[in-house]
Amino acid sequence: MTIKEFFKNDRYAVFSGIELLAVEPGKALAKMDICDMHLNAGNVVQGGAIFTLADLAFAAAVNAYGNLAMSVETSIRYFKGVGNGTLFAEAKAVHVHKKLATFEVHVTNQAQELIALFTATAFRKELSLPFVENAGY
Amino acid sequence: MTIKEFFKNDRYAVFSGIELLAVEPGKALAKMDICDMHLNAGNVVQGGAIFTLADLAFAAAVNAYGNLAMSVETSIRYFKGVGNGTLFAEAKAVHVHKKLATFEVHVTNQAQELIALFTATAFRKELSLPFVENAGY
Amino acid sequence: MTIKEFFKNDRYAVFSGIELLAVEPGKALAKMDICDMHLNAGNVVQGGAIFTLADLAFAAAVNAYGNLAMSVETSIRYFKGVGNGTLFAEAKAVHVHKKLATFEVHVTNQAQELIALFTATAFRKELSLPFVENAGY
Amino acid sequence: MTIKEFFKNDRYAVFSGIELLAVEPGKALAKMDICDMHLNAGNVVQGGAIFTLADLAFAAAVNAYGNLAMSVETSIRYFKGVGNGTLFAEAKAVHVHKKLATFEVHVTNQAQELIALFTATAFRKELSLPFVENAGY
Repeated sequence: MTIKEFFKNDRYAVFSGIELLAVEPGKALAKMDICDMHLNAGNVVQGGAIFTLADLAFAAAVNAYGNLAMSVETSIRYFKGVGNGTLFAEAKAVHVHKKLATFEVHVTNQAQELIALFTATAFRKELSLPFVENAGY
Repeated sequence: MTIKEFFKNDRYAVFSGIELLAVEPGKALAKMDICDMHLNAGNVVQGGAIFTLADLAFAAAVNAYGNLAMSVETSIRYFKGVGNGTLFAEAKAVHVHKKLATFEVHVTNQAQELIALFTATAFRKELSLPFVENAGY
Repeated sequence: MTIKEFFKNDRYAVFSGIELLAVEPGKALAKMDICDMHLNAGNVVQGGAIFTLADLAFAAAVNAYGNLAMSVETSIRYFKGVGNGTLFAEAKAVHVHKKLATFEVHVTNQAQELIALFTATAFRKELSLPFVENAGY
Repeated sequence: MTIKEFFKNDRYAVFSGIELLAVEPGKALAKMDICDMHLNAGNVVQGGAIFTLADLAFAAAVNAYGNLAMSVETSIRYFKGVGNGTLFAEAKAVHVHKKLATFEVHVTNQAQELIALFTATAFRKELSLPFVENAGY
């Protein structure tokens, strides 16, 4: 199983129309085409949908090292409401320890405007993930 | 329109199976019965689903004052992975200024275990929401 | 050595005029009488001074369990600028795991107004602190 | 008055041995030579001292636009304890709105290792700062 296949089991992300475009240890890119189902009562994308998009990119990038990683704390700052188009989430490692890892995810729209900044810290368990043997990380 | 009706237009929350049980200015309670669609690749509820539940409770509680409020920054800390049962999100005001408001949301499961702590700050616009005239806030 | 004596070695806190009033596992109270040295260029207490006060209360409360705990992530939200009087920081455990612990600290002034909310997560090492043997925790 | 002179009135920063090296709208650099007074009971630099260093760089960079800016929320993530040497804080704008501005500050040591990541959001008041007329921002 590759890591991309592993994350197809993230049912909430799949259900939310989120696609993982690329992933390697410490980096990932995901996208979400905005549909009516992502909007809140104010007709802009719900914060939770933006969060879920960023969270998938983060989870893929941090788990790609091969250890199961659990989110400890995440913060998100929103800069602009959006009601249509496509959102992209690009995750990058800030600092990776043996036990803890911190990542940033920039969420942008199709016009490359910054929509949100997501910063997250994960706890890395000793448990290896199923794709590790095949991926050689 | 009541505030509860207004939040039925939050399509991402509705789509995620989240129900707003009670709301008044500064307080709200929401719930989500955990289904397969909420799970991540590790078979526990995706962080984004927990976030969306908490965010709906927060949005309802802060918008219930009558001014449109936009999230500025939110942080969430996770304490326990859960794979089934029901999650509840209880939002309470910490501090409400004219322009900025800070809320906390405790996410618990059916056994009243604390699953996550969500803390959020919103910017309150001058725009009044449609339910205000009827609700009398 | 008691835990209160141990924290007298926190030179930055001592230097900042911060006093640890009470501490037990999961709880602590500290205070700071506001002096000219705590003010910023706008003549209110510098955010760093409020942070340091809250951080001492948090560090005392989490280390009082007996394991050395290191801050992983901390967030602070400010509600009111203050230029004089006394600030109090009251730390309380939100959730304590074997490896990770989350605390909240409420910073109030002498009129019991909420000045800031500090939320922090620490990583608990296996190393025992020197006061543990005497304190019996 | 220049903005550098204005920030010499930040007494807590001065008292903490923090020096503002460079500042322009949206950017600033500050440093702190680590002394015994900055250490905590574990003999590494207290989180509050690192926070204060980062906060001064942030405050200078955001106030350099000319409007008085107040911190709303700040989070800091620590990556490495340090006991000696020099710390540098480099602040950069992430997003600047009329009312709200978000900045990141990277704190590094003399070996250019990342010690902490500080992310902050400020509320920008309409009040102009005294250095504005001279500085021409």
